[in-house]
Amino acid sequence: MSPTPPPLPEFKLALLGFGNVGQALIELLLEKRADLEINPGISFKVVGIASGSHGRAIDPRGLPMQEILKAYRKGEALSGFSSLEVNTSEEFAHKCGADVLFESTPVNYQTGQPALEYIKIALENGLHAITANKGPVVHGYRDLTKIARQNRVSFLFESSVMDGAPVFSLARTGFPGARIQEFSGILNSTTNLILSRMENGETQEEAIAYAQSIGIAETDPSGDVDGWDAAVKVAALVTVLMDVPFLPQDVDRVGIRSLTHDLIHDAAERGNRWKLLCRARLDPESARGVLAEVKPTEIGPDSQLYHITGTSAILQIKSDVLGNLSLIEDSPSTKTTAYGMLADFLNAVT
Amino acid sequence: MSPTPPPLPEFKLALLGFGNVGQALIELLLEKRADLEINPGISFKVVGIASGSHGRAIDPRGLPMQEILKAYRKGEALSGFSSLEVNTSEEFAHKCGADVLFESTPVNYQTGQPALEYIKIALENGLHAITANKGPVVHGYRDLTKIARQNRVSFLFESSVMDGAPVFSLARTGFPGARIQEFSGILNSTTNLILSRMENGETQEEAIAYAQSIGIAETDPSGDVDGWDAAVKVAALVTVLMDVPFLPQDVDRVGIRSLTHDLIHDAAERGNRWKLLCRARLDPESARGVLAEVKPTEIGPDSQLYHITGTSAILQIKSDVLGNLSLIEDSPSTKTTAYGMLADFLNAVT
Repeated sequence: MSPTPPPLPEFKLALLGFGNVGQALIELLLEKRADLEINPGISFKVVGIASGSHGRAIDPRGLPMQEILKAYRKGEALSGFSSLEVNTSEEFAHKCGADVLFESTPVNYQTGQPALEYIKIALENGLHAITANKGPVVHGYRDLTKIARQNRVSFLFESSVMDGAPVFSLARTGFPGARIQEFSGILNSTTNLILSRMENGETQEEAIAYAQSIGIAETDPSGDVDGWDAAVKVAALVTVLMDVPFLPQDVDRVGIRSLTHDLIHDAAERGNRWKLLCRARLDPESARGVLAEVKPTEIGPDSQLYHITGTSAILQIKSDVLGNLSLIEDSPSTKTTAYGMLADFLNAVT
Repeated sequence: MSPTPPPLPEFKLALLGFGNVGQALIELLLEKRADLEINPGISFKVVGIASGSHGRAIDPRGLPMQEILKAYRKGEALSGFSSLEVNTSEEFAHKCGADVLFESTPVNYQTGQPALEYIKIALENGLHAITANKGPVVHGYRDLTKIARQNRVSFLFESSVMDGAPVFSLARTGFPGARIQEFSGILNSTTNLILSRMENGETQEEAIAYAQSIGIAETDPSGDVDGWDAAVKVAALVTVLMDVPFLPQDVDRVGIRSLTHDLIHDAAERGNRWKLLCRARLDPESARGVLAEVKPTEIGPDSQLYHITGTSAILQIKSDVLGNLSLIEDSPSTKTTAYGMLADFLNAVT
C-alpha cells in the first residue's frame, strides 16, 4: 500500500467585482481546478464574492461557484449564499478571510479610487492583491508595492494592460538589469477595431455603434475614442517598465475623432493605415524624465504595427540590451483577461 | 554621519567558452557593473575564464577583465593570468570556485556533449549553470533541472533560442497553469537572411557567401541550410514549453536547398514569401505526443511571419488560455545573446 499523499496547499480566494471579468475568472477557475492540482500542485476555494449590484457573499467553508454563477445570472442576490453579513466593499476586504483578493471593480481613472483603497486594505491584511484595473497601477504602484513588500505578499496587475498577455511578467523576468528606453504600441482595442471597420467602409458612428453592440465600447465611448484608455495604459507602462511615476494627464493625448472616412481612404490609397499609436521614451531634458503620447499616426506596411487589426494589440519595447522586442496579442477575450489574473495568482503563491 | 552601508552581495563568475559570446558577455558585464550595483544591488568578480584555443585562467581574487580581453585578442594565452594550473575544461568546472558558470563552448548537437558534462559538474558542485547552447537543453533538460533543484541552484538557458529574447523566462512566468498547445516561428536567422537576400535578386550561393562574410554562417553552412539548427531549436522549445522530451531527429525536417531563385520570384509575383517555418503541436495520436516540423513554406502578407526579414526572428505561441501570442526580436547581435546570459544570472541570484 502506498502512503496517503500529503494534502495540497489550499488557498482561499475572494473576488471584489463580479462583472464580465469576475465571472470569467470563476469559469476559468472551475475549468482549471484539476490541472492546477497536478501542476503546480495547489487547491483553492472561493470564500468571498462581492458584486456591485447583487450584494456580497462570504463563506469560510467555500462558496458554491456553479450555483453562484447561475443565481447571479438570473439576477438573484448573492447574500443568500453568505454565512455572515457584509455591508460595504471595505468591510468585505476586511472580513473575507481570504489569502488572495482579485479586484475588478469599476474605477475612476482620475483617482484610482475606490480600487486603490480596497487593494490597500487587502495588502495590509496580508492578502495578495491582484487587479485587472489600470487605475491603482497608475495612482498607487510604488506605495502598494511597498505595502505588499512590508506584508510579504504580492501586488500584481497583469490584466491591466493588453488583457492577459504577459506584459508585466515579461518586464519582471525578461529584462533584469536592462534599461527600457522607449516603447510604442497599439493598446486600445476598441479604437483599433473602429479604425479597421472604417477601412472597410463604415463611418466612425457606424463603427462605434458596432463596437457598442458587441459590448466592447461603452454607451459613452469617449474613454476610448478620446484616447483616455490608451493614455492610462501608457501611464501604467511608464510607471512600471520605466519606474517613473506618470499620470494619464502627463500623456500628450489626441483621440481618433478627427479621423474621417476620407482621411482613412486617402491613407489606404498610399498603402497606409491610421493607427492610434501609443509612444513613450526616456528624455532627461523633459520635466518628468519621460515624454509620452497617444496620437493618430499614419503607418506604412513595413511596420509590424500596420498588421495589428481588429481587437489585437502590440507592444514594442526598446532597451539598451535587447534592441526592439515586440509582443503581439491576437484577438483577446474576457477569458484572456481572467487568465492574466489566474497567472498573477500562480506567480504570487508558487 | 550616516552609517556605512552593508557591503553588496558579491558573486564569483566563471566563463567556460570564450568565443564571440563569451567576449561579448565580459564587455556587457563591464558596461553594466555600475548599474547592477544600484539595481538589483549586487557586485561580482570574474574568477575564471576557459577558452578553447588560448588556455584557461583562474584567480579567486578576480581576473582583470579589460586586460584579458586585450591579451586574448592579441592571441596571447590566458594562462599568464592564472594563479593555479588547470589542464582540462572538466578540471576548470571543478576548480574555478565560482558561484555561477556561463557555458558557451562548441557543442555536438547529436549528443549535447561536452557541454552537458560541464554543466552537470557545475550543478553538482553547487554552481548556477547558464548556457547559450541548445544541445544541453535538448539532451539534458529534465536531468539537469533535477540536479539543479537537488543542489538548490538554477539551470538556465535563455540565449539558446532567439538569442537573448526572453522566450524561456516568458514561458516560466507568463504561462503558469496554461497548456501550450502549439507554436510556430522563424527561428534560424541565417536562412531567413539568405531568403531575404534571394528576394532581392541574389542566388542562394551568393546569399550564403554574404552570410559567411559577415560571420553569421559557418564555412560549412549545412547546419543552417539543411534546417538542423532550426530543428534543434524546435526540439528545445518542445522539450521545455510543452514539457515533452524531444530530439532534433524527431523533427520532420526539410532545409532550404530546393528554394531556387525562380521559386522565390514566383512567390513574390503572388505577393508571398518563402520562409523556413518551424512548427510544433500537441497531438495525442502521434508516437511522441507532439508533431514538429521545419519546412520551407509560402507565406502571405497577412501573416506576421511574412514581415520577419533579415536576421529577425518570431515565435508564436498558442495556449488554451491566451489565444495566439507572438514574440518578435528585431535584428539581434552577439550583445543580445550575452544579455540573455546576464538575465539568467540575475534571475538566478535575485
